[in-house]
Amino acid sequence: MSDEGPSCPAPFAAYDRVVLAHGGGGRATHQLIETLFRKAFDSDELREAHDGAVLALEGPTAVCTDGFTVRPLFFEGGDIGSLAVHGIVNDLACCGAIAEALTVSFILEEGLPLATLERVARSLGAAARACNARVVAGDTKVVERGRGDGVYIACTGLGRVRARLAPKRIRPGQRVILSGSAGEHGIAVLLARGDVAIGSSVKSDSREISSIVHGLIDADVALSCARDPTRGGVATALCELARTAKVGVRIDEGSVAVSDGVRDACELLGLDPLYVACEGRVLLFVDESDAERALAIVRAFDAQAALIGEVCQDDDALVTAVGPFGGERVLDMLSGEQLPRIC
Amino acid sequence: MSDEGPSCPAPFAAYDRVVLAHGGGGRATHQLIETLFRKAFDSDELREAHDGAVLALEGPTAVCTDGFTVRPLFFEGGDIGSLAVHGIVNDLACCGAIAEALTVSFILEEGLPLATLERVARSLGAAARACNARVVAGDTKVVERGRGDGVYIACTGLGRVRARLAPKRIRPGQRVILSGSAGEHGIAVLLARGDVAIGSSVKSDSREISSIVHGLIDADVALSCARDPTRGGVATALCELARTAKVGVRIDEGSVAVSDGVRDACELLGLDPLYVACEGRVLLFVDESDAERALAIVRAFDAQAALIGEVCQDDDALVTAVGPFGGERVLDMLSGEQLPRIC
Repeated sequence: MSDEGPSCPAPFAAYDRVVLAHGGGGRATHQLIETLFRKAFDSDELREAHDGAVLALEGPTAVCTDGFTVRPLFFEGGDIGSLAVHGIVNDLACCGAIAEALTVSFILEEGLPLATLERVARSLGAAARACNARVVAGDTKVVERGRGDGVYIACTGLGRVRARLAPKRIRPGQRVILSGSAGEHGIAVLLARGDVAIGSSVKSDSREISSIVHGLIDADVALSCARDPTRGGVATALCELARTAKVGVRIDEGSVAVSDGVRDACELLGLDPLYVACEGRVLLFVDESDAERALAIVRAFDAQAALIGEVCQDDDALVTAVGPFGGERVLDMLSGEQLPRIC
Repeated sequence: MSDEGPSCPAPFAAYDRVVLAHGGGGRATHQLIETLFRKAFDSDELREAHDGAVLALEGPTAVCTDGFTVRPLFFEGGDIGSLAVHGIVNDLACCGAIAEALTVSFILEEGLPLATLERVARSLGAAARACNARVVAGDTKVVERGRGDGVYIACTGLGRVRARLAPKRIRPGQRVILSGSAGEHGIAVLLARGDVAIGSSVKSDSREISSIVHGLIDADVALSCARDPTRGGVATALCELARTAKVGVRIDEGSVAVSDGVRDACELLGLDPLYVACEGRVLLFVDESDAERALAIVRAFDAQAALIGEVCQDDDALVTAVGPFGGERVLDMLSGEQLPRIC
């Protein structure tokens, strides 16, 4: 270093966008890991610089995986980084597990500003820390301009199982609780695309619901199954569960909280809020005798939580919704694609 | 069903290409899982139809993750499906672990022929079974035409750790074995793109090297570290390890097997075979006293396995190659991107 002129730039310091070499496994990949990812995700396992991480897992372990391709990357209430963490932590919670470790695989598009990647990585790291989960292994691939869409993330989570929750444990007579209002995430992403405008703003519900599920487990509530109603919304999640458990489900449509913004957007677009994705809500199946107690616990997390329905015997595994005027309609799985790429 | 005319077609039976709805979480996603993925990957865990799988893992567990974006999807000696399995099983082996469970996340491009996806999924399933690994959880997302490139796969593996292998255990005096010839995978993919033509054909070396690593562990060989030289090839892998272990490595270039096809292609393209990716080779670091015994074991898997070098004390962590005429050159990490998207 001399006083007489600008110092020699560090190798690759000049990159401000993702180049193919960042996925090549050589110098640029290493620089990306050392200057950006390790700062965002620091963990003992990543510092080992090995091909993978070695974990001491005790007892039954849940493993969940999800790809994230949400467009745009940033939206009111979240971004692809925090969404990936919440998605996986919530899937683990629905398996009765507490998230311990995450792996993150990035597929980046050539030309992505590194500042954008850094913002995503920091958000992912912060969300993981907030959920007490460590990022223990990762990978980066880069595809040519026009062969991706900025950032895709595949995330896998490992967690310690505390309770056996499963669709097959759902029984007639059990009550269904929804932990908050429906459809905010899907509508927030749609609005962030700028294709529609409504009077009010809608913030994604993206959040972890693990503390709700484990709050119920801690309180020894007779909980048989939990499911986060993501793609396809509350209606599709209920249809899936009914089919797997070979039971019917009957819900009272009026008891499902829907915010004004979601209602306005759904009316404008001809969408049904029951089919719009949530990313921070959970459907909980509890024994009738524990239903009120469970609801009180869930309401401590979200005042809009409600008992929305009950499980009944039905070999056809129908899910029906009773409307405000007493009419009953059959809810089927989402057919076709309503809102592509909302997660 | 009536005898009087054609029976009613099953819903979506008419799809022969991937549509956005296949990633929507509704009917089409379910049909894809039930008709295609479950056949290819059948496992007890997938039949549970839950948000994730619950595994009984005993003792220390290795976890590895990788994204796969190879172009084209099919090449001489392999495809993106088998490659994903080999990549992860090999990373686990390099952590001293035996693969038990895999998760698979697909990011598909709208318009991909379902027959292509089925071919990839079947190959992935067959490779997993050949490695005694079960696919326990998966996910599918679909992106719009022009926002992907057919199929991207992110794969995560879990395995039981049998031996502590780590870069930090490499010590001066240890010998380096390469389990076969260098560079076949990178060149096979390059040739499959059709941009270059050489006289001979080159088949990818894509295979599992887990049986080699565990063969050495079974024989109680003093093995400190194993690393599969993928992106960036043998040279970059050695540079990474030397840097992490804070040692030097000196290799005899003439002892690295290079097939005629790889040599021809490298000469034509100005590539160095030491920097071309393998996907079925492993670098093994063994104590000098066990080196010949280890080599004999590895040669039972591949006659081209060779002792290629040794570890020396060097605070600068230099990797050097002695050429056929005695000249010595420094091998540095791959700089820039030589062959994009070879894995």
